Parts: sequence; structure tokens; C-alpha cells
Amino acid sequence: MINIIKTRPMCKDELIEKYKGQASATLHEAMGRRGALDPKIKPLDRKMRVAGRALTVQCHTGDNIMLIKAISMARPGDVIVANMGNAVNSGPFGEVLCVECIAKKIGGMVFSGAVRDSSEIIEHGLPVFSSGICISGTAKATLGTLNHPISIGGIIVNPGDIIVGDADGVVCVPLDEAEETIRKAEARVEKEKDIMRRLRAGESSFDIYGYQKVFDALGCTEEK
Amino acid sequence: MINIIKTRPMCKDELIEKYKGQASATLHEAMGRRGALDPKIKPLDRKMRVAGRALTVQCHTGDNIMLIKAISMARPGDVIVANMGNAVNSGPFGEVLCVECIAKKIGGMVFSGAVRDSSEIIEHGLPVFSSGICISGTAKATLGTLNHPISIGGIIVNPGDIIVGDADGVVCVPLDEAEETIRKAEARVEKEKDIMRRLRAGESSFDIYGYQKVFDALGCTEEK
Amino acid sequence: MINIIKTRPMCKDELIEKYKGQASATLHEAMGRRGALDPKIKPLDRKMRVAGRALTVQCHTGDNIMLIKAISMARPGDVIVANMGNAVNSGPFGEVLCVECIAKKIGGMVFSGAVRDSSEIIEHGLPVFSSGICISGTAKATLGTLNHPISIGGIIVNPGDIIVGDADGVVCVPLDEAEETIRKAEARVEKEKDIMRRLRAGESSFDIYGYQKVFDALGCTEEK
Amino acid sequence: MINIIKTRPMCKDELIEKYKGQASATLHEAMGRRGALDPKIKPLDRKMRVAGRALTVQCHTGDNIMLIKAISMARPGDVIVANMGNAVNSGPFGEVLCVECIAKKIGGMVFSGAVRDSSEIIEHGLPVFSSGICISGTAKATLGTLNHPISIGGIIVNPGDIIVGDADGVVCVPLDEAEETIRKAEARVEKEKDIMRRLRAGESSFDIYGYQKVFDALGCTEEK
Amino acid sequence: MINIIKTRPMCKDELIEKYKGQASATLHEAMGRRGALDPKIKPLDRKMRVAGRALTVQCHTGDNIMLIKAISMARPGDVIVANMGNAVNSGPFGEVLCVECIAKKIGGMVFSGAVRDSSEIIEHGLPVFSSGICISGTAKATLGTLNHPISIGGIIVNPGDIIVGDADGVVCVPLDEAEETIRKAEARVEKEKDIMRRLRAGESSFDIYGYQKVFDALGCTEEK
Amino acid sequence: MINIIKTRPMCKDELIEKYKGQASATLHEAMGRRGALDPKIKPLDRKMRVAGRALTVQCHTGDNIMLIKAISMARPGDVIVANMGNAVNSGPFGEVLCVECIAKKIGGMVFSGAVRDSSEIIEHGLPVFSSGICISGTAKATLGTLNHPISIGGIIVNPGDIIVGDADGVVCVPLDEAEETIRKAEARVEKEKDIMRRLRAGESSFDIYGYQKVFDALGCTEEK
Repeated sequence: MINIIKTRPMCKDELIEKYKGQASATLHEAMGRRGALDPKIKPLDRKMRVAGRALTVQCHTGDNIMLIKAISMARPGDVIVANMGNAVNSGPFGEVLCVECIAKKIGGMVFSGAVRDSSEIIEHGLPVFSSGICISGTAKATLGTLNHPISIGGIIVNPGDIIVGDADGVVCVPLDEAEETIRKAEARVEKEKDIMRRLRAGESSFDIYGYQKVFDALGCTEEK
Repeated sequence: MINIIKTRPMCKDELIEKYKGQASATLHEAMGRRGALDPKIKPLDRKMRVAGRALTVQCHTGDNIMLIKAISMARPGDVIVANMGNAVNSGPFGEVLCVECIAKKIGGMVFSGAVRDSSEIIEHGLPVFSSGICISGTAKATLGTLNHPISIGGIIVNPGDIIVGDADGVVCVPLDEAEETIRKAEARVEKEKDIMRRLRAGESSFDIYGYQKVFDALGCTEEK
Repeated sequence: MINIIKTRPMCKDELIEKYKGQASATLHEAMGRRGALDPKIKPLDRKMRVAGRALTVQCHTGDNIMLIKAISMARPGDVIVANMGNAVNSGPFGEVLCVECIAKKIGGMVFSGAVRDSSEIIEHGLPVFSSGICISGTAKATLGTLNHPISIGGIIVNPGDIIVGDADGVVCVPLDEAEETIRKAEARVEKEKDIMRRLRAGESSFDIYGYQKVFDALGCTEEK
Repeated sequence: MINIIKTRPMCKDELIEKYKGQASATLHEAMGRRGALDPKIKPLDRKMRVAGRALTVQCHTGDNIMLIKAISMARPGDVIVANMGNAVNSGPFGEVLCVECIAKKIGGMVFSGAVRDSSEIIEHGLPVFSSGICISGTAKATLGTLNHPISIGGIIVNPGDIIVGDADGVVCVPLDEAEETIRKAEARVEKEKDIMRRLRAGESSFDIYGYQKVFDALGCTEEK
Repeated sequence: MINIIKTRPMCKDELIEKYKGQASATLHEAMGRRGALDPKIKPLDRKMRVAGRALTVQCHTGDNIMLIKAISMARPGDVIVANMGNAVNSGPFGEVLCVECIAKKIGGMVFSGAVRDSSEIIEHGLPVFSSGICISGTAKATLGTLNHPISIGGIIVNPGDIIVGDADGVVCVPLDEAEETIRKAEARVEKEKDIMRRLRAGESSFDIYGYQKVFDALGCTEEK
Repeated sequence: MINIIKTRPMCKDELIEKYKGQASATLHEAMGRRGALDPKIKPLDRKMRVAGRALTVQCHTGDNIMLIKAISMARPGDVIVANMGNAVNSGPFGEVLCVECIAKKIGGMVFSGAVRDSSEIIEHGLPVFSSGICISGTAKATLGTLNHPISIGGIIVNPGDIIVGDADGVVCVPLDEAEETIRKAEARVEKEKDIMRRLRAGESSFDIYGYQKVFDALGCTEEK
């Protein structure tokens, strides 16, 4: 097995730009309710938002040497997605690495584990999504992989997939579904805008979506 | 069993107004340390605050059709309290329903489950209390109940009960205890104001409350 | 066993002042990766920060009488560190005690348990680190200890130890390691400043720290 | 509020006998997927099984005085169902009370909290369902209620309801649904026996239940 | 996307036979500490043990229709590995499906979710690994996939991979590493047998593995 | 700091023998409700039971080199108590070390972390108390301490303290309280035997302990 793969499929910048305007929940719905990472992976600050190409990292629990290598290889706009072994008892990413990410114009970070220097990271403005905050340090002694497929938060992320994170969490859109998903997402947004306009005018979503039919089919009974 | 009950006892608006000024912890104490929902149910933003009449909803896990019906039926100021089956792996309430709630002047929402579009909900200003944030969508295929008694966060909530939520969590005051509880709460606030004045003047709460007597009774020993 | 010990070793104020400028993660590293309390113990607000001498408290689960006594005995700048029995289902510290702490110029509070009146505490500006927020009240009926060694968050805290808390959590520096630890921490900060300067200039931390040698030793393979 | 209610509706013994032969999951399905307590409440030993009338108890967190009173009042075959405030950090029920339950021929115990002397309880053979095992003792200093409706494990249990517990957990059947539920459960068991016979003969449940129609409706695609 | 793939790579039966004699922990070590699913996925009974080819299933949270289809398609000895969306609040597998699995001579089941009828499953003797036991039923209304790669317990499982489960949990060996891994595992077992023989004769593992060298390198200090 | 301390206070064997007959809950009560480790630390099998002198170990998270050294130093009957950094995602103790412990006649093991080869350990008959079972391996690269005081499960354990573990969990009795605690425990057992005899004869614990007085003091109301 080759530990470090350098090449990965890269979608066009225009496509990434379109994803920057989409909410994670909208993309999840547009894919047929797929792609959402485990809700434990959350932004450090709810205003954080990221959309970019996945650079995937597999680390050994409590060891961040592959992550450091990944940062050195990342291109501007990349989202580093790292399976850290669910190690919420160690913080493999802190201010020093954050400064390097900012210098390299990395788009953001997604971890199945904790980070530290959380306050400094928020001030630096790097979008970081993790499952916790932890002071404890990590080792640099065990190999893992770069740009292999990884399993994170119950989802397979392939290198080059599109990652979108916001206040609700993180969604992964497989690269070969990226064009179709953005079209469906944009259509969904348009539809929801119209529905919200009608709701503001006094209608009910229960009526707009026609759920009385579902109630009738299920035999729902109402007090007269 | 009738699924949907439309009528429920409604206390006077003046009473609700009094509850708007009370903290959840004060009400819990005023009731003899009862009524607090499980601490996992928290506001999306710590500045959120709500006080209103409960409209109760029982949903099947991962299904929000009864919640949508409840919103269509709610009156201004109501607090929709929904047992969602502790489903922290799905988000049954998002921006579209939030916009409808705002349009209907609903007071707020309390869920034993997660929500999505959390950032948009905070911006819209609807007080929402939940046990998490999750991207994943829900089904609309199983019946539940409206305005039946429900069990949520270890507490029974009856339709028409008074619900108060703030940064600390949510308290339910049974309707038939509402007058007495507000009186006791107001008295407690007055008493605490006086105690805080004395503390600022240099006294200790240990002395004010006379806990040395408890220490003596328990045989507490001190270094000379 | 004497419940309440009144005397404890007290380091000089100058030393505490130096600790006020240090991050919890830096101190943890400077001690050889020791001293970090369990990451579940977090500040109520991420801007909270404290550094001071530990006044240690051992409470019975769900009982806060020893805590109230501790507050009455605390000196300006002290950090009260209380093992509350991991009782996240009760809130043993609220606004009244917070006002007393402010009046007594106490530095801050660290709890292995929950607090209440969280919003009021944040407004009063007292740094409070806890493992949750909970409305439910506590009893005042069981003895514990003051200024005995305690076990909290997987760490032994002795009275007089230096406690530092920030957005990442809480670190305890044993008193007899305090001089050495601050020296190492200050040196580490200087070194990291230099590294961050080099990272901003375009270098990689992977190169600066020389991790290629580790990769070579581990037999790391790369795609050509 | 009267703390202790002594009377409660009592179904006939014949009905209880019928419930003794039913699995918790079957009853849950027979009620339309309702009535299952939170899966955290489990038997101490997987061979434990109970069916009986609920005697309901509401205790203050960490306090078991109401439980002790309940045991003194219970009738043979009763199932004591106690909301202990989710206190997994204390064990309010141990060998002494177990011996009393055995002497009084109580049917079993259901707790939203932990127990202790678990090994002795298993040997005595009393069916006990709890959310954990914990050494720590409890206070006897705060009132609660007996034979009031309680909220436990996300379900409302009324005094006199039928409680069935087995290896999978605990189900509550409301008294006024008890006759109908047992009929539906028995019919379900008969149907499942027939299905299991057909499965053993080589059929698939996918075919027996006709799920290909659901697949067709959902547009499921298959590799040729 | 095709939902249901019917073909998958199948290793020889002889290889599976060799895996039947290996412990999960040994295989994890033999792969360089990879392949272990999240420790939350455990056997229903600690005597359960399975080794076989993965048939992979992706279900929607709270929906088991794809699982039922998978069982209908499985070959003797297969291990059905199903991502159930971490739904510990529903039990998508019970006695009826267990009986079908037994009839079809399926090797075992691995779920990222709960099961029900746990006692009956244990009696039937089907090895089942899950993250919990839950009474609540599931829907049959949403599509997923069969024999696609899945992410489960932090690991990617491909159809045809070798799955080994025992009292410690579950390990996945990728098919293309299967020959090499079994050789390494067998060698490790031989080596450990020899070490255990030496330990029984009075030696220490600290000496056998030569850890004093590590201590010396790290500067470990000992009391004289 | 010296990493490895070789000497520790050793109580007489006769005292240990007395502790072998006492339940963990009884000792906890006899000490005034102190000394119980966090209920997450449980025996691998409920029939396991241990009483012996503590040999204390502090390991770095995910590293077991100090544990291996501790085993090499332990005397017959010792209980090795190891703070493993709450690392439930790695298994630092397995069959090889278990065989060494058996050979050295070590009394048992207590871990704030997981173990592996759980089935083999149970067969070998070594009493092991841990907070989980996990396949994943550990590193041997970071120093800790032996025979220093440690914090584990919310309790301080000093080398030489008496550790008792059974189905309910683990209790630590400080060495200087050991004589007094065993006397109180034995008296408590006698008293409880008498109470259980009276309960079997038909009395209630509510009456035996005189709790009606507590009810009267608290103003408990009963239905006539």
C-alpha cells in the first residue's frame, strides 16, 4: 500500500463557487438524504462555513503526523478531511498548524476528533469542524494515508469529493454527483423561497405540501 | 384514540406576561424543585427566552408530520412542545417551518430531538430549545398525537401547561399550579435580591443562610 | 479526618501574574503533556479565562454545602476547584453564589458538574468552568472536605496548585513545578512565535520540525 | 397535592396472566409502535422477565425514601416503576430492599436510574430493570409521589398500567388499551409463527411481505 | 446509481476457514493496527463468533427494507454488514429475520445500530454484532444500497471483504490483503504462544520485549 | 520527578483476608459514602471479585509501557490500578499480559480504559475491571509513573490502598482508614442480616428504619 497519493480528481473552480452558496441541509436533501456526516462533527463557531475539494487523511488515534504532511501538500481552497480515530481525548490541531493553513490559503478542516487553541483558531478565521475541544497533545510516530478513501462520521469521503460545512455540520458530495446535486439544490432553494413567501402570506406548510392526504391515508382522527 | 385534540385549557394572558420575567431555575425552586426538563434540551442560542402555553405533540421517531400539523394549528404565543423520540440523528425542524412559526407569531419550540438550519433559525429570532443540531431529514409517514399529555425530558407536559425556557433549559409549570408558582417565584426573587445586596456589602451566604448549624449537626471538623 | 483545612501553601503573586498570560495547552505541553483536566470541563463562555491558586472542595453528589463554605473562606484571586461527583443532573452554583464570588474578588470556579443561571453568570463576568448547565437544585445535608487533595477530571489537584483555564479547558500545575513550568512555557511560546513567522513566510511545519526523518524511519511510501 | 395515593385501578389477574407470555417487542408493535421505554433501561440479567400492574413512584434525584414507602405498600405481583431522576451516579436499590420485595412477592422493579448489589439481586431472582449499576448511596430527605402518573424513559406510566419487561427492555400498556393490545399481540404471534414456518421452508420475508411493490414504487434499480 | 449490485468478489472457502480460527485483535495487529470497527459494535453474547464474506448494506436511519432484501440475497456463510445510520433508538432486526438467516445458513450480522428479540436471537445461535438493543420498530419506506462500499464504525467495508467478529468486536480485512494478513496473524499467534510459555516459566514481558531500552531512551528514572 | 517508585506501605495479609469477604457497596457506606470509583469501571464478568493492595500506574493515553513495567514489578495478590487516560478507543491489556499476571499471582486489574481479548481473560479467571472492551492496540513510547498517587474514576488512589471490586464496581479504602473501615463494614453486615431476617418475617424497611418520622417532618400527605 502506498501511504501518500499526490494526485486526485479536481473539479472546476466554477463548481466550487456554486457550492459556496448552498446550505449543508439543502445538499443533503438534494442528494436524496445522503452525505451528512455524524452530527457530532460541528464548527468551532457557528458562523464558520466552508466549501471545497477534499484532501483526505487517515491518522492513527492520537497521532497527527499524517495531518501535518497533508497541510504541507494542500492547495488553496482545499478542505482537509481527517479521520483521527474518534480521539476526543487529544487535540491534534492547534494554532501553529492553523497559521500554516492560513498562509497556504487552505479552505478549512474537518476532523473526527478534537482540536485545541480553539479561541485562537476562531480569531484567525479558519473554518474548523471537529467533534470536540481538548488540551492534550498527540504523538508523531505512526503512519496513515493521504488521499485514500476514508470513513468519517459514517460516510465514505473520496479525495476530490466536495465538502460543505456550516452551522449544522458537514456534508460530502461525491465528485461524480456534484453537477447533478448542485442543480437539484438550486431548484430546491427556489422552491423553498416560494414556499416561504406563501407562508409569510398566511398559508400553512401542512396545506402547501398536501399532508391532509397522508393523514387520510393513515386514518388520522380529529376532535370535532 | 383521537389523534388530534383541538381544545385545551388556556390561562389568562396576564399570567403568561408575569412568567415572561421569571428564570427557569427560579420557577423550578418555587415548585419545590420540580418541573425541569432533562438538561440535554438547550436553546440554540443562549439569549433565547420563551414563556407561553404548551401545545403538545407526540411524533414517531424520525417523522415530523404531526409537528407540521401542530404548527398549522398553533395560536400566537404558543410554545410547541414535541416528543420527537429522542432522535438526535435527524433534524425535523428547519428554516421553512421556522418562517411559518414566525408568520403565525408562535412563541417558541421545545424538542426532545435535533433541529437543522440552526443558523437561519437564530437569525429569524424564533426561540428553539432542542437536544442537538442535525442535517439529516425526516419522514412524513406515521401518526402521533396533538394536545395529548406527553412525556418529554423526564417530565409530563399537559396541553395548556406553562412552558418557560432560557439559557439554563426548560421548565414546565402545570396549569393548576400556575398562580401559586408565580407568587412563590416572585417572592423568591425579592428574597434573593435582598441576599445579593447583603453579599455585595460583604456578608457570606454561608452565614446568611445559617449553615453553621447544619455543620454542627453533621459534626463538621475544622483545622484550628 | 478534619473536614475543613484552612491553611495551604501560597505561591507569590508575581508567579500568578506570569500564568495569566499563558494558554492551557502551552502549559500542558510544558509539563510534558500532563495536567489537563477531562475535556468535558469547559468555560461557560469561550472568552472566559482564569489563572490562580486552587482552593479545593470535595462535595457529595448533588450537595453544595461545602462549596458555599469554600466561597466564604476564599481569598481574592483564588480559583475554587470542586469535585461535585460528576452530577450533571444538578446545578450547585447559580447567581446568588456568583454575586458573592464577585464581591469577594474570587478568581474563578472549576466544577466536575453543572451550574445554573448560566446567562447571569456570564453577564457578571465570573470565569466558570463546568461540565454542563442544569436547572435542578441541590441539597445541603452531607459533609465533604475543604483544602484536601481532590481528584477531578482525571487529575489530582492539591490546595495551592496553580489552575489555568481558557477556551480549551483547564490545566493544573502542581505548586512545586510552577517555577519550572512557567519557564518552559515561556520558552515554548517564543519558539512557536518564530515558527509561526516562518510559516507565514511560506515554510511548512512538516519541514521545520523535520518529520521526513520520521517518515523515512517508518518506511512511508509516496506516489511518484 | 397529595403525595401518596393508595388506590389505583386494578385489571383482572387473568389479563396479567396473558401478558406473561408476551414479548415486549410484540406488545410495542401491537400498540402501533408505542409504549417502549428508553432502551437505556435494561434487565440486570437477560433472563429476567416481568409482567404486572404498575405502582408508580416519583423520587427526587439521589433520594430513595419514596421508593422505600412504595415497597411497603406494594401488593403481590406489582411492578414498581420509579422515576429516580436519571441518577446513574447513585444506587437507590440494593439487597436489603430486594429481600423485602421477595418477602412481599413483588413482581419486579423498573428504574430510570442505577441499582447496587446487582449480583445479590440476580441471585435472589427479582426481575430488576435499570439504566445502570452504581455503588454510591442515596439520601432519604426529599418528598416525591406515589401512584401519580410519571414520566419515565420518554413514556407516561399511570398507576395500574400493565408493565412488561424482558431482555429487550420495558413496555407500558395503558390500562384502557390492555384488552385490545393483548388480542392484537396474540394475533401477531400467530402470524409470525406461520411466517417463520414458511421461512424455514425456504421462502424469503422479502417475498412474504411483498416488499418488491415498495421497491417498484420507490424506483429501486438492480444490477442485471 | 444502481441500488442493488448482485455480484461481488468471492475469496476461496479455504481462506475463510483459516480466518475462523483467528481472534479479531490478532487480525487488527497483523494488518498494522487497522480494520477494527468502533468498539460500540459488540456481540449480543460474548460467546458469539463469526468469520465470512461481507455482503454490504446501506439503510436509511430507522428503515430496514434494504436489510430484508439483503437477507433474501445472501449466500451461506455470508456476513451481512449494515450501516443502519447509528439508529440506537430502533431495532431493525428481530426473531423473524433471524429465523430466515438461520434457514439460509447466513454466517452472521454486523449492525451500526440496535436489534430486538435479543434473547431469542441468542437462543437461535446466530452471531449478531450491534451497538445496542431496542424494542422500537422501523419503517420500510426509503431506499439504500446493497453491495456498495459502506462506512461503518469508522471503517470502509467493501463487498467481499472478510469480516471477523468475536467477544472484543469486529474487524474488516480488505479482500486484497486477506492472504497476507492471515499469514501474519498465524505467525503472530505462534510467537505469542512462545511468549506465553516463557511468561508461565517466570519471565516478564517487559524483559522479553526489551522495553528497558525504550525506558533508557526516554530517560526513565527509578527509585534506588 | 522519579518515574518509578518501588516501595509502598503494605498492610498485613490478615487485613486483606477480611476485605475479601466484603461487598464494594458495604465498604462505600462504611466509609461514610466515599471511595467508589466512577460506575463506568465494571468487571468483564459479573462473577469477578478482587481485594488487594494497590500498585498504582499512570499511563499516557493510548500507551501501555508503564503498565507492562508495573506487571513485572507486582507482588502476589496486588491489584494494579492504572489511569489509562480514559482511552476507551484502545485496548492496552490482552491475553499475553493476562497470562503474565496469572503466572505472577497478581490479584486483579483496574483500568480507566478498555481491554481486549476479553473472552480469553474471562477464561483465564483474572479479575479485570475496565470501562470497555476494544480491539485497537496501543503504543509504547511515552513515560508515566509507578506507585505515585493517581486520580482514577473521580477518586485518588495511593499506592498500598486497599482496592475491592465486585459486580457493582470498585471501591478504594485509604490505607490509614483500613482498620476502621473493616470494623464498620462488618458491623453493618451484621445489622443488615438482622434487618433482612425481620423483612423476611413480614416487617417493612420503611418501619424498621422509622421513616414515618421523616415523612412527618417533611409534611408528607396521604390519601385517606
